[in-house]
Amino acid sequence: MSGILPQKYKFTGVPARIKNWDKEDIGMIVSEVPAVAAGLFTTNKYVAAPVEICCRHLGNPIHGILVNSGVANACTGAQGMIDAEKCLAAAASLTQTSESGWLVGSTGVIGAHLPVEKMCDSISKMQPNADDDSAKAFSRSMMTTDTFPKMVCKSLLINGNEIRLLGFAKGAGMIQPNMATMLSFVVTDAEIEQKVLQQMLQDGTQTSFNCISVDGDMSTNDTVLCLANGSAGSIEGSENEFAQALTEVLQELAQLIVRDGEGATKFITIDVCNTPDQKMAKEIAMKVANSNLVKTAFFGEDANWGRIMCAVGSHQGAFDPNLIELRIGETVLFNNGVPVPFDEEIIKNYLHQTDLNVVIDMKQGTECARIWTCDLSYDYVKINADYRT
Amino acid sequence: MSGILPQKYKFTGVPARIKNWDKEDIGMIVSEVPAVAAGLFTTNKYVAAPVEICCRHLGNPIHGILVNSGVANACTGAQGMIDAEKCLAAAASLTQTSESGWLVGSTGVIGAHLPVEKMCDSISKMQPNADDDSAKAFSRSMMTTDTFPKMVCKSLLINGNEIRLLGFAKGAGMIQPNMATMLSFVVTDAEIEQKVLQQMLQDGTQTSFNCISVDGDMSTNDTVLCLANGSAGSIEGSENEFAQALTEVLQELAQLIVRDGEGATKFITIDVCNTPDQKMAKEIAMKVANSNLVKTAFFGEDANWGRIMCAVGSHQGAFDPNLIELRIGETVLFNNGVPVPFDEEIIKNYLHQTDLNVVIDMKQGTECARIWTCDLSYDYVKINADYRT
Repeated sequence: MSGILPQKYKFTGVPARIKNWDKEDIGMIVSEVPAVAAGLFTTNKYVAAPVEICCRHLGNPIHGILVNSGVANACTGAQGMIDAEKCLAAAASLTQTSESGWLVGSTGVIGAHLPVEKMCDSISKMQPNADDDSAKAFSRSMMTTDTFPKMVCKSLLINGNEIRLLGFAKGAGMIQPNMATMLSFVVTDAEIEQKVLQQMLQDGTQTSFNCISVDGDMSTNDTVLCLANGSAGSIEGSENEFAQALTEVLQELAQLIVRDGEGATKFITIDVCNTPDQKMAKEIAMKVANSNLVKTAFFGEDANWGRIMCAVGSHQGAFDPNLIELRIGETVLFNNGVPVPFDEEIIKNYLHQTDLNVVIDMKQGTECARIWTCDLSYDYVKINADYRT
Repeated sequence: MSGILPQKYKFTGVPARIKNWDKEDIGMIVSEVPAVAAGLFTTNKYVAAPVEICCRHLGNPIHGILVNSGVANACTGAQGMIDAEKCLAAAASLTQTSESGWLVGSTGVIGAHLPVEKMCDSISKMQPNADDDSAKAFSRSMMTTDTFPKMVCKSLLINGNEIRLLGFAKGAGMIQPNMATMLSFVVTDAEIEQKVLQQMLQDGTQTSFNCISVDGDMSTNDTVLCLANGSAGSIEGSENEFAQALTEVLQELAQLIVRDGEGATKFITIDVCNTPDQKMAKEIAMKVANSNLVKTAFFGEDANWGRIMCAVGSHQGAFDPNLIELRIGETVLFNNGVPVPFDEEIIKNYLHQTDLNVVIDMKQGTECARIWTCDLSYDYVKINADYRT
């Protein structure tokens, strides 16, 4: 993979034992030349300290991103800000850059304070590198209940230059972002104006991170950042191609988060088609995606389609419930207000697969929405019943 | 209990093997004299056939309520209406009353048709009685995943007459009513005008069934009915006392539903106090009650209070998150934007109890709301992963 890392970025991830584990839990991305940054953040009222700092630094020339897992540094008041700033000071000192050029992301337990001394000690010994292994170590440093690191890369030719994008994300619970997902970072060596990048990130997030749900909970730390350091050349004249590539990276990362949702055994794509407006399509798809009864039925591979229609019908908008067709895979289960007889064997075999498609054709408009979600299993309960300790 | 049954009501419940079980699954309440009826129903777009029939018959002189479990008769189109009417015709024929004087409630799988012949055959052999055992058999006939029948009785003296109320309810999943819960019936021998009874039922439901959530799903069949047959005398001049007693019956039934929520091991009371308006208080309490992360933490007896604050903060209304105090039991965990150090032993012992209290004091107004909910356990997943078969 090292051959396709964007130019002039270095990565690292090291274990600081923020929690009682051996894995990497502090990571760093360094841009060797100042980058422009775009960002989207949680709309939760409890904005974590790292999110506040990102908002403050976003317009500055950016030198890097510091990340930690284990403690979210949310609901930590003034102390949380002081702690985050101490860590950034250590990163700035290590790289001989300005603290105001650093962005930061934290994920883990809400309401606990960062073990700042341990962390600063680890930061002072960091050695970021421009190789594959270092990028992977960074990716692992973001993980909490994730079972695999999530990285996506892409390259495209613009004005004769090879432009590269490399994206990272972490799941795996508290996932129904309203602006962005918990933590996701994309770095590129393209040259782009900050305003243009911000708009591209916003648009791309609408059809990626804002279209997934693991458990319907919105985190205090949701952050998506994109750095562009200009090392490979300008995208002028090919903005649409670049925006498309960026959106694809964001969508692949979003889908990886769902695939690795806490306890997930199924990856479910829900399409709500032909509604009068897009908002309704998305809301109905989210109602289905967030129904515990629908999610447990998928875990049990049970074609209990009535629960899907019940979730659809719980939407309070103005639509005619008697026009709708429901398909799971290729099988029509409900149409025009009545159940459609189906072959239990065919649907049973279909539900035994990992990747499932649900189509709700409203037949009363032209707008559509697609949501990706997962099932609700014993392991979701297990993972979350005793997360803090 | 027979000594406190309201006058001139008979009950029964028999097994018709609607599903592959031996328990009672058809039940009947008969009022020996015509009763007035009040009712509240689901706001789901997919209104089940029995709900449609109740809406149509509600203003008529009422002879009884027919109920079945196993099949919800929802999403069943015109056939569903024909099936429900056949069952009511059998009930009317048995009791030599008019079909238009019957109300009906169904609960179970959505999208399946009723086994009408079996059911009519069972109905034709029913023998309703005014005794304790018959009332209990009726109560069992409504059960699906409920682990115990839910009955509440109350009596009060009005104008020298003893007025009695007897209420029934069934849970245990698909519980976050928007008008009423899945099925609940209250019968009384008081004499009340229909309009007055309807208003009392509406008011009482606001602070009972509309304040509970097991899993945030709203059913297609939610129905609460109240019959008043006037046999014990008028409530004139004591409307408030009667309304209070009715509300208490509804609240006790609502709490029983939560206590018997699918897989529930905890009964959690969530108070949101001192908000600018009542709607916000209730919405915030519901956000906490419906967070899977909060519910699994309670199942694990883990004081992961950050998840509660995260759920509070996800409300998009205008409030100051830095004024709020969070208490679990007597222990303050978060106040004025910062964590409050607490004794892990004390909170651990507290969370080991079955009945738990969460208080979110917003400190920015005078309105309050109380919601009852339960935890999310392995058994919830087990019960719902393979419910249909």
